Amino acid sequence: MNAKTLKKRHHLLIDHVHHTPVLTSRLLDEMAGASLYFKCENFQRAGAFKIRGALSALLALPEEQRARGVVTHSSGNFAQALALAARLTGTTAHIVMPRTAPRVKQEAVAGYGGIITLCEPAMTAREAAAGQIRSDTGAVLIHPSNDRDVIMGNATASMELIKDLPGLDALFVPVGGGGLMAGAVLAVQAFEPGCVICGGEPSGADDAYRSLKSGRIEFNENPNTMADGLKTHLGDINFPIIQDGVKEIYRVSEEQILEAMKLIWERLKVVAEPSGAVALAALLAAKESFQGLRVGIMISGGNVDLENLPF
Amino acid sequence: MNAKTLKKRHHLLIDHVHHTPVLTSRLLDEMAGASLYFKCENFQRAGAFKIRGALSALLALPEEQRARGVVTHSSGNFAQALALAARLTGTTAHIVMPRTAPRVKQEAVAGYGGIITLCEPAMTAREAAAGQIRSDTGAVLIHPSNDRDVIMGNATASMELIKDLPGLDALFVPVGGGGLMAGAVLAVQAFEPGCVICGGEPSGADDAYRSLKSGRIEFNENPNTMADGLKTHLGDINFPIIQDGVKEIYRVSEEQILEAMKLIWERLKVVAEPSGAVALAALLAAKESFQGLRVGIMISGGNVDLENLPF
Repeated sequence: MNAKTLKKRHHLLIDHVHHTPVLTSRLLDEMAGASLYFKCENFQRAGAFKIRGALSALLALPEEQRARGVVTHSSGNFAQALALAARLTGTTAHIVMPRTAPRVKQEAVAGYGGIITLCEPAMTAREAAAGQIRSDTGAVLIHPSNDRDVIMGNATASMELIKDLPGLDALFVPVGGGGLMAGAVLAVQAFEPGCVICGGEPSGADDAYRSLKSGRIEFNENPNTMADGLKTHLGDINFPIIQDGVKEIYRVSEEQILEAMKLIWERLKVVAEPSGAVALAALLAAKESFQGLRVGIMISGGNVDLENLPF
Repeated sequence: MNAKTLKKRHHLLIDHVHHTPVLTSRLLDEMAGASLYFKCENFQRAGAFKIRGALSALLALPEEQRARGVVTHSSGNFAQALALAARLTGTTAHIVMPRTAPRVKQEAVAGYGGIITLCEPAMTAREAAAGQIRSDTGAVLIHPSNDRDVIMGNATASMELIKDLPGLDALFVPVGGGGLMAGAVLAVQAFEPGCVICGGEPSGADDAYRSLKSGRIEFNENPNTMADGLKTHLGDINFPIIQDGVKEIYRVSEEQILEAMKLIWERLKVVAEPSGAVALAALLAAKESFQGLRVGIMISGGNVDLENLPF
């Protein structure tokens, strides 16, 4: 994808999303032996990078389609993001959530004006409920990560980091559904082609790691990790982009995720959710290969339940 | 104090302390009915505003005095700050800490090169230990808050906020020993005299509130609050400054402090310690008087023990 296309997309979003800050820490630099630049998407609207992709997808829809509303199934950050994006563009978001989704997340979606449909906590039930809403209302299904417009929106996070810090040697991004990572690949290829792209993935949900090894999309049978945003699997749109641009995916243990999360809270003084700490965990696990380099670290989101922290 | 004197002091510090960012939140603005500007001293070096005062005091010492080292007694953020300030100015900091001080705080002081002397957890024991170190080493005693140079250093936090956001209607600052508040008064009087200054204080340690009412320094008999940085009492140097410039001190309950802390963590996505949330708690308690105004909120620090959170 060329630079001009991405710049146009960023321009479309720029009035509605935050250009998030980049934080640094001497102590973390010393610990890593590298200069770390933390892109704080936890400061993004609705608390995560997801609003970039959601809004990008909505703005890419022809007006008469957008007017019929959109639908997605998500129990996580994309649910809030799509609800907010719908409000910003004057349309309706139908959000299918498992009835087990935390009340705080349901309230956040409702707070942004999203219309919630609860279903049984199984992928088949979620897809069935979303399908029913589509046929009832004509709403367009927006996938949280495996969607070309979502990926282009997500790319704007990495674009901002590259613009703020030219000459990055490496960029670490967490991998769940692969939408943020695919966006990072597009941005780096267009604006900083010398930058090495690496992923971080929980060992308990390492489908992307295995997919890169085998050359085809692998699945997580029983994903198990505190990084709940990374339990989803790759899609057929983002996987080839990731194959094309990612050098390495590092797997990290739950202990490593927790340790990275504590470092971010204690040293950077910002609130990152477990998924948002996985990129730092991966860099720390692989730090011997990055000594003396300038490394971007994507903090993807900061939505946590303070009553239920892993510390 | 005139503007030129304060500007000179800021210039002395500027290479060694962070010009901390100002954060905002639409949701918190809606909740308050005002435009809130959070000065994030939790992002300051050593995690709190204290480095400003500590460094200011050290730089104000004649060189031959500074060379003999400095001493203070503190179990909190000033201990770390003075240790770091001593390292930055090439001298030695002796820190008297109660033997009950959390290991994490002792480690932080030691990490900055401070020399720790443990004593019994009573003010008389602390003062005796500090006195002994003075007579043994010739080190100069630096008081954490009741010191003219410390206050001038602290003033630079409010100066930065005023410079970044001209036209503030009000500024809310937490009050413990009174050093940060006295600094805020000096800054506002010099650079934004139309701005109203208000304090926040825990009901369980409300000496400043009572002192303003009675016109003389009152004490906390048994200070009891999760905002441990605010348990200390006013001094004879900062109290007259506070009397001169502070319009009102609002007392807040432990529930209100906890609620404000959660809002800062969940909405701003930054880590504030309980003391650092008291200014927001006070504004929310008094919000009816500040509708539609531009209000600065000082987040004084972010040093917390993640293993021991109040949530």
